Amino acid sequence: MAAESSWFHIPRGSPFSLANIPFGIISTPSSATPRPAIAIGDHALDLRAFASSSGFRDLSVIQPHQAVFSEPTLNAFAALGRPVHSVVRKYIQSVFAADTPYPEVLKANSALQKEALLPLAEVTTHLPFAIGDYTDFFVGLNHAYNCGVLFRGAADALQPNYKHLPVGYHGRASSVVVSGTPIRRPCGQILENPKVEKKTPVFSPSRKLDYELELGAFVCKANKMGEPILIDKAADSIFGLVMMNDWSARDIQSWEYIPLGPFNAKNFGTSISPWVVLMDALEPFKVAGLENSEQVLRYMKEENKENVYDIKLEVDIKSKSGNTGTVTKTSGRHLLFSFPQMLAHHTIGGCPMKVGDLMGSGTISGLEEGSRGCLLEMTENGKVKVSLGGGEERAFLEDGDEVTFTGVCGDDETTLVGFGQCTGRVEPALKLYSD
Amino acid sequence: MAAESSWFHIPRGSPFSLANIPFGIISTPSSATPRPAIAIGDHALDLRAFASSSGFRDLSVIQPHQAVFSEPTLNAFAALGRPVHSVVRKYIQSVFAADTPYPEVLKANSALQKEALLPLAEVTTHLPFAIGDYTDFFVGLNHAYNCGVLFRGAADALQPNYKHLPVGYHGRASSVVVSGTPIRRPCGQILENPKVEKKTPVFSPSRKLDYELELGAFVCKANKMGEPILIDKAADSIFGLVMMNDWSARDIQSWEYIPLGPFNAKNFGTSISPWVVLMDALEPFKVAGLENSEQVLRYMKEENKENVYDIKLEVDIKSKSGNTGTVTKTSGRHLLFSFPQMLAHHTIGGCPMKVGDLMGSGTISGLEEGSRGCLLEMTENGKVKVSLGGGEERAFLEDGDEVTFTGVCGDDETTLVGFGQCTGRVEPALKLYSD
Ligand SMILES: [Ca+2]
Ligand SMILES: [Ca+2]
Ligand SMILES: [Mg+2]
Ligand SMILES: [Mg+2]
Ligand code: NI
Repeated sequence: MAAESSWFHIPRGSPFSLANIPFGIISTPSSATPRPAIAIGDHALDLRAFASSSGFRDLSVIQPHQAVFSEPTLNAFAALGRPVHSVVRKYIQSVFAADTPYPEVLKANSALQKEALLPLAEVTTHLPFAIGDYTDFFVGLNHAYNCGVLFRGAADALQPNYKHLPVGYHGRASSVVVSGTPIRRPCGQILENPKVEKKTPVFSPSRKLDYELELGAFVCKANKMGEPILIDKAADSIFGLVMMNDWSARDIQSWEYIPLGPFNAKNFGTSISPWVVLMDALEPFKVAGLENSEQVLRYMKEENKENVYDIKLEVDIKSKSGNTGTVTKTSGRHLLFSFPQMLAHHTIGGCPMKVGDLMGSGTISGLEEGSRGCLLEMTENGKVKVSLGGGEERAFLEDGDEVTFTGVCGDDETTLVGFGQCTGRVEPALKLYSD
Repeated sequence: MAAESSWFHIPRGSPFSLANIPFGIISTPSSATPRPAIAIGDHALDLRAFASSSGFRDLSVIQPHQAVFSEPTLNAFAALGRPVHSVVRKYIQSVFAADTPYPEVLKANSALQKEALLPLAEVTTHLPFAIGDYTDFFVGLNHAYNCGVLFRGAADALQPNYKHLPVGYHGRASSVVVSGTPIRRPCGQILENPKVEKKTPVFSPSRKLDYELELGAFVCKANKMGEPILIDKAADSIFGLVMMNDWSARDIQSWEYIPLGPFNAKNFGTSISPWVVLMDALEPFKVAGLENSEQVLRYMKEENKENVYDIKLEVDIKSKSGNTGTVTKTSGRHLLFSFPQMLAHHTIGGCPMKVGDLMGSGTISGLEEGSRGCLLEMTENGKVKVSLGGGEERAFLEDGDEVTFTGVCGDDETTLVGFGQCTGRVEPALKLYSD
């Protein structure tokens, strides 16, 4: 894609180029009510201000629906459907284009520029959606394989169902938080010595706190209970993607998860990046996912093999003392199933989705050294430490550690389609008992 | 408790005696907007109509909050807290008492009686709460043991963690529906022959559709993320109980659930009874739960051993041809952990609860023949059939089967505290493919 230039200053290397136009929810010191915005360069365009100053005057399709830009979440905008998201994004691109056909809207309207174009450094971002239900999948094959090797050895690394269906579980919607929200180390039951015959847990702050590098997809179309979303319609139900950190307490998890899956090990917090990148913006970066040696059943068969995205993903850990290590570099392509496949599977029994529901991909890992999406996998459950530089190393996360994900598509620094950051700092556990 | 008589006709044997006063959400042909009501005898008292005709004139504490009775869910009423639920229930009891101190409110007000007292047969009940998150526990020890014996034998029937924590998983909030909603048989992946080496699933309607007899508890108090609800405060966070049918597809479940727990096997529908029985109404029926041979950790220790309820529970299955069998008779007392313990455990790592969140107990089974809370357990995974009468028998549910739970506390037919019914009929699977 050739770089289209803008009359507005978009710094080279910005994840929010004119080719992106991601949507989020912001508030400002002068206006505390959360409302929709898009990110462009170093700025947010406040869509409530933009709409109320007739910014959408040249886009007739959105006229009857402008109230969506005064909502505190993106749910109402998302519910308008992908064709509407598409024209709104294109219209905003054309408003910002150097040769905009609508100069009077913003380019020549310094009053509206002043009112609606807000430095990102001065806005607060909020959870972009009211999330009804949140589901976390486990379709990062390399991650599943590596963890399987760790606990069961190479021969049985993958469970028999793994390649036949996107394995997933229902997560906790109430603890999904926006990037920047501190994450308190959870307390809970852990087994100090898992090898003794008589298993008696102790109460403790988690000693194996981990992150999981994932992508999240927001649903923009509801289906009725009992009526599956068929695979060829599933892409129409996905609004856009975010980066997601599925914080995990490995010691709580290993004790609690049999037989019903992870619970308190995961429900204390899940962070997402604030700017939702639309599927249209990601379209140029579609690539084939991981090869599946099994035939998938017809209800999950996609025509196009290019069904995932080449998003360059990185994880940094910054310690309290300021040492920072880039511990993971990988790509969003390392998935065995696509989001449309996950959605088709999720609903095949009739489960109703609502607008704003969130699906996580599962931890994304590459095959090479340095490409593993969580510490459990990277440190072989704490055995091999990873360096943060300055002599600091980690088996698992320590109090004060700040974990930051970045994700970006493209190589041309003027047309990047990026996610910005998903970050969270670990706070010490609560002191609940004095003894 | 002595029977207090009412000036209003409450049929003998009604689950909704003056001692009960359960809350729900109704609509009527003449007013389609859902609003709060209580059930009394054969009638609902429309609280929107009651409040707007100054029915609460003699209860000052509710004056500033009467808007809660115009809401389409009980969330706002529940959020007022247990002391308010308590006085509102007592006030309504006194309004209906034969010797009511407030005769002008309803007893002598035939206009309001006509407007607000609606025959239950003529009202539609709705989901009582907007449910943010739904969690299903597994604390019916007898059920867990019986299922464990079935799949792993008696020696390993219970997993090592089972008695140390209330095992649970996050369920799907979007598919919780009110009693009476039809349940479509789900399609999904099943293994036709689980014993063959090479496991290849087929796509099929579930052939092992089951119900699970559970109790559900609604949360009425939010906690902040990172701040657990301590055990001695946990009871304050519970509004009331309903009966819950956690419909389950056993064949889908056994293939999908390793390692992250049940997913499509459970997310196609969960039914709850429409009238929420307040904790105050259940107080006289407190009994000790099942003995725990393990010491529970301090964060779950309750002072009072009487922490569950002696609710007589029954399950009827009525076939398409009208044969009806009572297949289960048991009691709500057969639980290893109480709802306050479940809540304390759920939040010990900091998971935030919201008003309207739902927690299920897990399947409730007694020890005797005929007291098992699901077909899997009762029929030993389909091996032993159960009779519905008229020559009909069941291994699992067939299309057209209607499953009805009833639950009631007490023996005196004039002071029953009952749940009414939780019912649902199985509809045939969708035909998705022609081949
Ligand atoms: Ca995960
Ligand atoms: Ca259950
Ligand atoms: Mg999480
Ligand atoms: Mg269910
Ligand atoms: Ni181009």
